[in-house]
Amino acid sequence: RRARPVREVLFFPSRPCCIEALLAEAAEPGAPARPCPCPLPSGDTALSRLVRRLLSARRSLDLCLFCFSCPQLARTVQILHRRGVRVRVVTDAQYMGLHGSQIGLLRHAGIQVRHDQHSGYMHHKFAIVDRRMLITGSLNWTTQAIQSNRENVLVVEDAEYVKAFQDEFERIWEEYNPANYSFFSQKQ
Amino acid sequence: RRARPVREVLFFPSRPCCIEALLAEAAEPGAPARPCPCPLPSGDTALSRLVRRLLSARRSLDLCLFCFSCPQLARTVQILHRRGVRVRVVTDAQYMGLHGSQIGLLRHAGIQVRHDQHSGYMHHKFAIVDRRMLITGSLNWTTQAIQSNRENVLVVEDAEYVKAFQDEFERIWEEYNPANYSFFSQKQ
Repeated sequence: RRARPVREVLFFPSRPCCIEALLAEAAEPGAPARPCPCPLPSGDTALSRLVRRLLSARRSLDLCLFCFSCPQLARTVQILHRRGVRVRVVTDAQYMGLHGSQIGLLRHAGIQVRHDQHSGYMHHKFAIVDRRMLITGSLNWTTQAIQSNRENVLVVEDAEYVKAFQDEFERIWEEYNPANYSFFSQKQ
Repeated sequence: RRARPVREVLFFPSRPCCIEALLAEAAEPGAPARPCPCPLPSGDTALSRLVRRLLSARRSLDLCLFCFSCPQLARTVQILHRRGVRVRVVTDAQYMGLHGSQIGLLRHAGIQVRHDQHSGYMHHKFAIVDRRMLITGSLNWTTQAIQSNRENVLVVEDAEYVKAFQDEFERIWEEYNPANYSFFSQKQ
């Protein structure tokens, strides 16, 4: 029997929390738990819910993110990549090189990343899990946004919305194919 | 018979377009049309669709916006205010004073505006029309975002999602009540 489609709204800032146990279990399922020495409580927070949704990926994770500097979310993505999930990342050229960006690290790990070549921003902040679940909102994947800003994230398992965003992702993925880069004109 | 609930996804950048006819008709319904001398085509674009959704407000418009500098959207909001729609605006303290911000102009027009008092950003970008329709996404209400950025906006007429955002709006509206301002401590 098909489970009820996910419909969730997450608001940030997230309460401070430790997600080490969550990441450790995802990286090595069944391994003996090693308690984290940090003083933060674990528990159910906006961040831990977001991470759980991402970790539910089995086949693909498509990310379209203006800023990606949160180390915990970068570890989440790397765990999925190591598990064999096909991860693709689209990001903004101006922001990917800033201090703290996790984009270089993801590329080093072998994850495909493409970026724009425009003066306008690639300002989306969405993720698509297994071409089935859309995660979208105002949240850039930065520690500042997660811990300090008022932000929203919708989690929607709805074929119509997912298709609209998946199509947008594929359009951008193709448009930002390095084979299409031009160093003379700005395509719009 | 109840119309089918609105479910729409808008992607930006929006094609350049003139929305003068749309605004003129909203400001003075039935007045003789005066053709706009600008060279832009009118027509169906992401911006014109967003404006139409906003102009559908009859009773209330609640705005929670990090940046609001787009003059066309400020005019849309003022038309609603003049029509007697109850408009409330929540925005970010750091951004409301920047060059081009429309917040001062809205206040001059008599629209209620409240802002945060935190170091973190009030980074939401959502609108709720008549406590019935949620408009949310990555789009700040700036001309740059509308004309140049890759952005998304979801339009959702769904009681569950609307309630979550309406509750968040009321929480923020109360928290940012100037009567509660403190000049000595940063509440979190």
